[in-house]
Amino acid sequence: MRKVKVGIVGASGYTGAELIKILQKHKSVELVFLTSRTLVGEKANKIFPEFPSLKLTFSDTEEVSKNISKEEVDIVFLTLPHEPAIELTHIFYQKGIKVIDLSASYRFKDKLIFENTYKIHHPYPELLQKSVWGLPEFNRTEIKNAQIIGNPGCYPTSISLGLLPLKEIKEKIDLSNITIDSKSGISGKGKKLSEDSLFVEHNENFYAYGLPLHRHTPEIEQFIKLNFNQNVNVLFVPHVIPMDRGIFSTIYIPAENITQNLLDELYHSYYDKEPFVHYIDTIPQTKWVSNTNNCMIHAKYLERNGKIVVFSVIDNLVKGASGQAVQNMNIMFNIEETEGLT
Amino acid sequence: MRKVKVGIVGASGYTGAELIKILQKHKSVELVFLTSRTLVGEKANKIFPEFPSLKLTFSDTEEVSKNISKEEVDIVFLTLPHEPAIELTHIFYQKGIKVIDLSASYRFKDKLIFENTYKIHHPYPELLQKSVWGLPEFNRTEIKNAQIIGNPGCYPTSISLGLLPLKEIKEKIDLSNITIDSKSGISGKGKKLSEDSLFVEHNENFYAYGLPLHRHTPEIEQFIKLNFNQNVNVLFVPHVIPMDRGIFSTIYIPAENITQNLLDELYHSYYDKEPFVHYIDTIPQTKWVSNTNNCMIHAKYLERNGKIVVFSVIDNLVKGASGQAVQNMNIMFNIEETEGLT
Amino acid sequence: MRKVKVGIVGASGYTGAELIKILQKHKSVELVFLTSRTLVGEKANKIFPEFPSLKLTFSDTEEVSKNISKEEVDIVFLTLPHEPAIELTHIFYQKGIKVIDLSASYRFKDKLIFENTYKIHHPYPELLQKSVWGLPEFNRTEIKNAQIIGNPGCYPTSISLGLLPLKEIKEKIDLSNITIDSKSGISGKGKKLSEDSLFVEHNENFYAYGLPLHRHTPEIEQFIKLNFNQNVNVLFVPHVIPMDRGIFSTIYIPAENITQNLLDELYHSYYDKEPFVHYIDTIPQTKWVSNTNNCMIHAKYLERNGKIVVFSVIDNLVKGASGQAVQNMNIMFNIEETEGLT
Amino acid sequence: MRKVKVGIVGASGYTGAELIKILQKHKSVELVFLTSRTLVGEKANKIFPEFPSLKLTFSDTEEVSKNISKEEVDIVFLTLPHEPAIELTHIFYQKGIKVIDLSASYRFKDKLIFENTYKIHHPYPELLQKSVWGLPEFNRTEIKNAQIIGNPGCYPTSISLGLLPLKEIKEKIDLSNITIDSKSGISGKGKKLSEDSLFVEHNENFYAYGLPLHRHTPEIEQFIKLNFNQNVNVLFVPHVIPMDRGIFSTIYIPAENITQNLLDELYHSYYDKEPFVHYIDTIPQTKWVSNTNNCMIHAKYLERNGKIVVFSVIDNLVKGASGQAVQNMNIMFNIEETEGLT
Repeated sequence: MRKVKVGIVGASGYTGAELIKILQKHKSVELVFLTSRTLVGEKANKIFPEFPSLKLTFSDTEEVSKNISKEEVDIVFLTLPHEPAIELTHIFYQKGIKVIDLSASYRFKDKLIFENTYKIHHPYPELLQKSVWGLPEFNRTEIKNAQIIGNPGCYPTSISLGLLPLKEIKEKIDLSNITIDSKSGISGKGKKLSEDSLFVEHNENFYAYGLPLHRHTPEIEQFIKLNFNQNVNVLFVPHVIPMDRGIFSTIYIPAENITQNLLDELYHSYYDKEPFVHYIDTIPQTKWVSNTNNCMIHAKYLERNGKIVVFSVIDNLVKGASGQAVQNMNIMFNIEETEGLT
Repeated sequence: MRKVKVGIVGASGYTGAELIKILQKHKSVELVFLTSRTLVGEKANKIFPEFPSLKLTFSDTEEVSKNISKEEVDIVFLTLPHEPAIELTHIFYQKGIKVIDLSASYRFKDKLIFENTYKIHHPYPELLQKSVWGLPEFNRTEIKNAQIIGNPGCYPTSISLGLLPLKEIKEKIDLSNITIDSKSGISGKGKKLSEDSLFVEHNENFYAYGLPLHRHTPEIEQFIKLNFNQNVNVLFVPHVIPMDRGIFSTIYIPAENITQNLLDELYHSYYDKEPFVHYIDTIPQTKWVSNTNNCMIHAKYLERNGKIVVFSVIDNLVKGASGQAVQNMNIMFNIEETEGLT
Repeated sequence: MRKVKVGIVGASGYTGAELIKILQKHKSVELVFLTSRTLVGEKANKIFPEFPSLKLTFSDTEEVSKNISKEEVDIVFLTLPHEPAIELTHIFYQKGIKVIDLSASYRFKDKLIFENTYKIHHPYPELLQKSVWGLPEFNRTEIKNAQIIGNPGCYPTSISLGLLPLKEIKEKIDLSNITIDSKSGISGKGKKLSEDSLFVEHNENFYAYGLPLHRHTPEIEQFIKLNFNQNVNVLFVPHVIPMDRGIFSTIYIPAENITQNLLDELYHSYYDKEPFVHYIDTIPQTKWVSNTNNCMIHAKYLERNGKIVVFSVIDNLVKGASGQAVQNMNIMFNIEETEGLT
Repeated sequence: MRKVKVGIVGASGYTGAELIKILQKHKSVELVFLTSRTLVGEKANKIFPEFPSLKLTFSDTEEVSKNISKEEVDIVFLTLPHEPAIELTHIFYQKGIKVIDLSASYRFKDKLIFENTYKIHHPYPELLQKSVWGLPEFNRTEIKNAQIIGNPGCYPTSISLGLLPLKEIKEKIDLSNITIDSKSGISGKGKKLSEDSLFVEHNENFYAYGLPLHRHTPEIEQFIKLNFNQNVNVLFVPHVIPMDRGIFSTIYIPAENITQNLLDELYHSYYDKEPFVHYIDTIPQTKWVSNTNNCMIHAKYLERNGKIVVFSVIDNLVKGASGQAVQNMNIMFNIEETEGLT
C-alpha cells in the first residue's frame, strides 16, 4: 500500500516532538517535511537530540504552505498558535490537503464561542462548519470523512471520555451542578518562555489556575450540549502537577436512583470494544497511561453524597494531543486505528 | 523564665523530625527526651543526620511512660499510631503531664465516631470530653486551658481554616452540597513501608485515594457541625502529589446573593490579625507556605456557577501537624504564639 | 515465520515490567508465561495496570521450571535475585532451553570473582564457561551462538560502551588511573522494600553510595581486561539521582598525544554503523535516551588537564537491562536486531 | 544594641529571596531597603508571596546607590550580574558603606584571571586588593576587618571546605591530578529565562555542562594556590540534578602513605569546633543540609586505588550563597556567627 505522506507544520514544541516520535515508528506513513518559522535550515536531530536517526531538516513554514501541492503531501498536522493555525488550515484546505489542527482554532461549530473565548477573529466560519472535532470514541464516522479535524484539547478529552456513557442515564444526573477538578503535568503549558515556567517555580509546588473561566470550559460545554442536549455552565478548575505528563480529572456529578452496578455496566458497554479507553474497577493513576494513547476511567457512585465521581486519566501529550491526532489520521486513511500507537 | 520541659514520644517519623527541628530553635523550651520502641539507645543525630548538633539518645517508650514524673517534663508530644496514643495519653494525663497527641485518638468528642472511623475501641470517653481539638484560630481560649490536645489532622486543618469565616454567611451557602478536592504531598503518608510508597511509584504519578470515605471526613463534619450547626455528609476526595510537602484544598460550595467584595472583607476580618493565616488576593501555591506554619487562603465567587471556590494551602508537616502542635503548646504555656515558628 | 516462544521468570519487578512492555509489541515473539513466587494465580494486568490488554496469569516459578519442556518455550528471561537465578539457569539449560539471565550470576568467567563479589557459592563453573556476557556492540557473534547470556549490569553497559573504542589507542591512555563517576535514576534499586527507598528519602536528594567497592566494579574490570589486556583497579563511585530512569557515566582517563579530532573519528568509526549507540558532538542528557534502547556518547579531550572525559548515557531499564536482553534475544534467533526496540 | 542596617541591591532572584528569608528572622538586623531595576514600586510581598509579612517596597537601584549615605545603611548585599556589581561595589565603598558582593566580581586578587574568565573589564584592581574572598572557616580574621567581601561561589565553597584540612598532609597528595565531579540543584542557574531552564527540560533529566572550563575553576585554583602553594590545572566537571537545592561534590585526589584514621582525625580537628561544618563518618546526602547553612563532609581513603575521595554537600542557596553572606556579615559586625542561621 502506498504510504501516507505527512507533514508537520510548527514542529518545534512538545506536541510536535511527540508527533515525530509516533510517526517515526508508524509503518504506513512517510514523514515528508517539518516546518518552523525560527528553525529553518536546522537539522531536526539537532533540535530533537532524542531522535538521532531523524534525517529531516526544518523547512520554512511560509514557503512550504505556499508551494506544496496535494501530490506531495496527503495530510498536514498543525502544532501552532491559534492565529497562524486559522490561516494555514485555510490554505492547505484550499489545496485539497487534509488538515489535523492541534490548536483550538477549528474545535468549535459556533464562531462566536471561539472568538469570545480566544479573543481572536475567525474569518472562516464556513470551515468551522466543515471541520470535525475529532474524538474517535464519540464520532468515528464523521472523522472518517473529514477534511479538517479540530483535534480536541487535552482537558476536554479526559473529561468528555469520562462523561460520554452517562448520556444513557442523563435523566438521573444533574449536569447543571457538575464540578470538574482537573490536574495536569507541566508539559501542558508548552515551551513558551516565562518566569513561572522555570523548573524551580513548578518543582515541589502545586496550584490551581485559569479562573474565572479557563479556555477549555466552552469546549466541554459544547460536548455536553451535543451529547446531553443541555446548556450548562460547567465549573471547571485546572491545577498543575509537578511532573511532565498526565492529566487526572475528578468529575463530580449529582445523581439519584442509580447503583454502582449500573455505572459499571454502562461504562463497560461503552468502552470494552475500544482499543484505547479502559474502564477499570479501581481509581486509575496517571503513570498507568504515561507515554501511551490510553485513557483509563473509573466511576464511583457515592450514595451517601448522592454524587457520581468519575476519575479519568490520559497522557496529555498523547491521547490529549498527538496520539489522538494520529488516531484520527488512521481513521481518515483507513489505516488500522492502533497503528503507531501501541 | 523557666524553660518548658518537653518530651517527644515515638519520635522516629516525619512529624517527629519536624517537631525536633522546630523545638531545637525554640527559645523557651528544653527538649528532655525522645522515645521510640525500635531505636532505644540510638543517638538521635545518627537517626536524623540532618540535626548534627542534637545530643539526645532515644529512650524506651514504655520505660519513660512508666517512670517519668511531672517534675521532669511539663508536656509530651505523641507522634504515634492511634492505639498506643490512646493509652499513653491516659498515662501521662494521670501523672498531671500535659499531652499534645498528633494521632486522631483525641480529636473527637463522640467516641462512636472515632470507633466507627478508626475501627479501634476507645476506653476513655471521659478523656475525650476533656480533650480539646486544637485549631488556634478557632478556639484559642479552650486550648489555653487544656490538659490534652487532639492535634487536628492535616486535611481538616487546611479545610477548616478555609471554611471558618463562612459561618458569618451560613444562610447564603449550601453546605449539604459541599465538595472538597484536596491534594497532598507524599510525606503525609508517613514512613510506613509499603510497595506503593517507593519513589518510583509516586514520582511522575498522580492519583486519588481513600474512597468511599476517607478517615478525615468525620473530622471535617464535626468542625462543620460545631461552627455551622449542620449535620452534613461531606464529599471529600484526597489525592497525592509527587512532592514532599504541601496540601492544596479546593473547596466548592453552592452560594447565592453574595459578592466577591463581601467574601474578601469577611476573610480579611477573620484573618488579618492572625499571625499564621493569610488571606490573599490571588490563588495561593503550596510552595509559598513550604517549611512554614502559614496557611494561605483565597476565596473566589463564581457568579456564573453560583459557587464559592475556596483555595487553602498549608505545609502538611508544619501547620498540618508539628507546627500547629507547637503553636498549641505556646498558647498553653503563655509563650509568644509565634515562638519557634518564624 | 514461527514466533519465538518466550517466558519470563520472576516477572514482578521493574525489569520484568519493562520486558513485558517490549515483548508485547515485538512482532516475532509470543509471550507464553510469566512466573512469580508470590503472585501465583494473579492476573498480570492486575499487577501491571499499565498493560490493560495483557491476558496472562502468573504461574508458579517452581512448577513451571519443573514441568516445562523445550517444545513449549524457546527462551526464558530470568529477572530474579542472584541465588535462584543460578539454579534456574542450570535447570532450563539442562532442558535445552535458552536463557537470558538479568542477574549477575552468569556475567563472570571467573567463578572466584563472582563468589567474592556477591558472597554466594556458584556450583556451576562449567556453565560460567559456556555463558556469554552479552553486549552486542562488543561480541555479537558470540551472542549469536550462546545458550546462556549473562546480561550485563546497567552501570557496566554505560561504561563499557564509553570505553570500547579506546582500545584502538590503548597505548596513549592510562587506565590504571581511570576514575568513573556514575549517576543513576532510582529504578536501578529495584522494588525491594526499605525505608531508604521511600519517595521522601530520594526526592530532592542526591548522594553517593556503594563504597569502598560497588559490585559492578569487577564487571567493569573484567571488560577492561578482555579488551585492553590490563589488570586495573577501577575507581568507580555510583550516585543516585532523584528521578526514575537514566544512567549518566562520567569517565576520566589520563591520556597524551591525542586530539579531539582523533577521538571523534575513533568513536564515529566504531558506532556509526550501530543501531543503538550514537556518538554525538555535544554532552548527552539522560532524557534523550529515556524509554529507548539507545546509548549516547560524547568524548572530550581536555588538553589542559591531560585527560579524556567520556560521557555516556543510557536508560538503565532498557539498554541497561531489559532492552539489551531483547536485543540479545533478537541476535540469538536471527530476528532483526531492532525489532521491538524502536 | 543598635541593629545593623542592611540593604539588598538587586533582590529579585533566588539568592535575593534567600537573603530576605534569613534576614527577616535575624534579631540584630533591620532590613532598610530592597532595590531592583525592573520592580521599582512593587510591594515585596507581591513579588515574594512566601513572605506575607514583608512590608518593604522595591526602590530603584540607581537612585538608592546615588542618594544613600552611610548613616542610613551599614552594609549592602549585592545580588546582581557581574558588571553592575563591579560598579555598585565601588560606589558603596566610596561612601564608606560595607559591601558583600554575591557575584564573582570581587573574588579574585588577580584582575587578569577575573577578566579572562568572565570576559569583563575590571576597572578597580585596587579594590580587588582590598576585598576579601569570604570563607569564614578559612579566613575569619580577614573577614572581620573587611570593607568588601567577595562572597565565594557555590561550587568553590563546597570544594574548598572539602579540601582545606588536606593542607596538613599536602606532601602526601597529588593535587596536580585532582578530579572534581560536582552536581548541583537547578536553583544554581538563577532565574534567567531560557528554554533549557523550563521545568520539562530538567525534570527526569541529568547532564554535565560547562566544559572545557567552567568559570568556577579559576576560583578553585586560586584557593589551592593560597593554601597548598601549588599552581594546578583543576579538572572540574559540574552537572545538574533535577531538584531545587543542593550541591554534591565528589573530589578524587591521588594520595599515598595515609590511613583512614589519619584522615578522620585531620578533618575532625579542623571542623569539630566549627558551627556549620560537620565531618561525619558516612557519605552525606544533600537533603541533610537542605535549607541550612551547614556543610557536611566525609573523606574516604581507598587504598586499593591510591586515592582519597572527599564528599562535600551544601545547600547552594544558603552556605553556597546567602547564608554564607550573612555569616560573613555576622563576623564583620561582631554578631554571634550563627545568628539568623539556625
